[in-house]
Amino acid sequence: MDFARHFQSQLDALKSEGNYRTFAELERRCGAFPRADRHGGPEVAEVTVWCSNDYLGMGQHPDVVAAMVKTVQACGTGAGGTRNIGGNTVQHRALEVELADLHGKDAALLFTSGYVSNWAALSTLGSRIPNAVIFSDEGNHASMIEGIRHSRADKVLWKHNDWRDLDRKLHATGDRPKIVAFESVYSMDGDIAPIREIVEVCEAHGALSYIDEVHAVGMYGPHGGGVTEERGLADRIDVIEGTLGKAFGCMGGYITGSTALVDFIRSFASGFIFTTAIPPAVAAAATTSIRHLKASGEERAAQRANVALLRKKLDRIGIPHLANESHIIPVMIGDPVKCRMISDILMQDWGIYVQPINYPTVPKGTERLRLTPGPHHTEADIDKLVTALGALWNRCAISHAVA
Amino acid sequence: MDFARHFQSQLDALKSEGNYRTFAELERRCGAFPRADRHGGPEVAEVTVWCSNDYLGMGQHPDVVAAMVKTVQACGTGAGGTRNIGGNTVQHRALEVELADLHGKDAALLFTSGYVSNWAALSTLGSRIPNAVIFSDEGNHASMIEGIRHSRADKVLWKHNDWRDLDRKLHATGDRPKIVAFESVYSMDGDIAPIREIVEVCEAHGALSYIDEVHAVGMYGPHGGGVTEERGLADRIDVIEGTLGKAFGCMGGYITGSTALVDFIRSFASGFIFTTAIPPAVAAAATTSIRHLKASGEERAAQRANVALLRKKLDRIGIPHLANESHIIPVMIGDPVKCRMISDILMQDWGIYVQPINYPTVPKGTERLRLTPGPHHTEADIDKLVTALGALWNRCAISHAVA
Repeated sequence: MDFARHFQSQLDALKSEGNYRTFAELERRCGAFPRADRHGGPEVAEVTVWCSNDYLGMGQHPDVVAAMVKTVQACGTGAGGTRNIGGNTVQHRALEVELADLHGKDAALLFTSGYVSNWAALSTLGSRIPNAVIFSDEGNHASMIEGIRHSRADKVLWKHNDWRDLDRKLHATGDRPKIVAFESVYSMDGDIAPIREIVEVCEAHGALSYIDEVHAVGMYGPHGGGVTEERGLADRIDVIEGTLGKAFGCMGGYITGSTALVDFIRSFASGFIFTTAIPPAVAAAATTSIRHLKASGEERAAQRANVALLRKKLDRIGIPHLANESHIIPVMIGDPVKCRMISDILMQDWGIYVQPINYPTVPKGTERLRLTPGPHHTEADIDKLVTALGALWNRCAISHAVA
Repeated sequence: MDFARHFQSQLDALKSEGNYRTFAELERRCGAFPRADRHGGPEVAEVTVWCSNDYLGMGQHPDVVAAMVKTVQACGTGAGGTRNIGGNTVQHRALEVELADLHGKDAALLFTSGYVSNWAALSTLGSRIPNAVIFSDEGNHASMIEGIRHSRADKVLWKHNDWRDLDRKLHATGDRPKIVAFESVYSMDGDIAPIREIVEVCEAHGALSYIDEVHAVGMYGPHGGGVTEERGLADRIDVIEGTLGKAFGCMGGYITGSTALVDFIRSFASGFIFTTAIPPAVAAAATTSIRHLKASGEERAAQRANVALLRKKLDRIGIPHLANESHIIPVMIGDPVKCRMISDILMQDWGIYVQPINYPTVPKGTERLRLTPGPHHTEADIDKLVTALGALWNRCAISHAVA
């Protein structure tokens, strides 16, 4: 086997279809977000970031930064071990208490990332509940898909956001343990699940409900508890999963649920047991960020205003974007090469950074720019973005139809 | 299905066999390591940590702490996105350059943890090299086992550290792409693989070699490049995998290898693509730690001296510990309940923290205390530990046979 040749031919195939990824190299500037320095070009240039998942700019919030700095100075840089072997600290414990409270649950469990929390929790539930069937929304994130796959439990896909289809499929399955996995805000289309209807269907069939709120925690609900808080449904869902790496501006993932369920995952999930805990300083920063967003609605309000403003200005010049109820504005391009080209021009000519979203993040043919306005974008930023897109739309002769 | 009852019964089974885990709750004290405050008891008490994987105390090194603090203040707390979408920074790039250099490879790729690096790299290699067979040392870590399992490639287990068995099994497999996965230092027994012989067998069969050096990077070799550096074998191994969470005192994992191999994993591994990057500040701290341990052999020398001293003193009073060539000293107990009891007494009566290592971390019947002396333990610390273990050995009537 010529491994090198195989690797190269696979990479060449990606390149020829326009799906080879190159990473923009940024230098984040605390206090100036969404401004950043872009490296890797002929010279360092300032850009405005329009595709960050640090949705509310909490990664530069003075209290969050101060908590991280203080804890690094007091406790050092790393945890030094797994949660079980030397790596469990007061900071991890405090964060789990905070997370359980955020979602009104008995308990919470931290993971090293949102990806790992989905993968580890779903693979453990699927493999350690005998004869279980997992019902997965067909739009679910890669981390859920891989967790379900890894569990080797039977999987039933249901049509995206279609609770009637879910109901039929649960009904057809008979008397087996059922787990229903779905998201609140879907990252790439920005649509929000009909959570109430899904929960009612789960309840009717005695299914365990598992919701991924990674794109919603911190941003929806009066305390940032996500769409489940906003809609008053948190107490009717068995597992609420979230991340500390997006609106909370840090890193790590978690699940919340009943004491027994969380203890079960804690005790059996390989991806939890056999990995070094996140740094205590990251846990302290996340705790501070969560507490801030529990009390303050200011960031959420400013973000919403900017989302509405950008949508209105895009509409005014006929730039197509997917309609949805969330903070994510997908501008559809539909071709990987064109998508990258537009992104490159925005970066080079306008100092606007929007990463092209190509396969495998979205299905082929639905390539897009995914805009995430935050509370720190100014109206001048929005105007510049809209002007740039307008100029490009003319230049590239992309149709003005609204998707 | 009564989910709550199922979870509880599984937890009860763990408890009845002595394998239910409770986490010691620590507060790390930067500058005082291996001293820490223990919370969760009637009052906060000082303990000496004897089971940390912050093997060299780099988590409190002033330069490493300063790098993390400085980068948090300059760039904020989180990365704000995946490496592809807004989360790739100059700090990630610099760390990858440093890691490739550490192992003398063309390229490196960062992951959120060592667990994820093994899981993602092996699952991608196994699933995206058609008809591949993975030959896995039977002592491999959970993260490798799960990665191989997830790939659904055919797997062949070979006897632990037995290169002749590997040779026979490679020979018997015929003309298919072969991947050989093993570790340098095995975490729980502390034994070191016969890497030269394994590499020669791989070369003879045209197999791709993959070594996990997580318990060796920073600690072996003149620049901390691991056992492969120490033995002059790094350039004959295709993939060297390591962690930033142990001797380097931070968090994160990585692989290093040829440009094409690393680019292949970067381009196809779900566990790399779909997850938020580690905080730039953690990357900066890790880079500083690696650079320090490339230049300084002081920490390694002091650690080795303490390992030798503790072994000698344990021998003098007849406390059994596994012989091995590494820095890990396993004191065998062989019973989960007794192992926890000894650990509890050490903590409560002696202020010594050594987590009991029970199933599933080690096979049932091989429960142990795993001691990891570091450069910051004093001779008085060592004497106290040996005295405590001696007193307990008498009190618990554990046999004095040397394992």
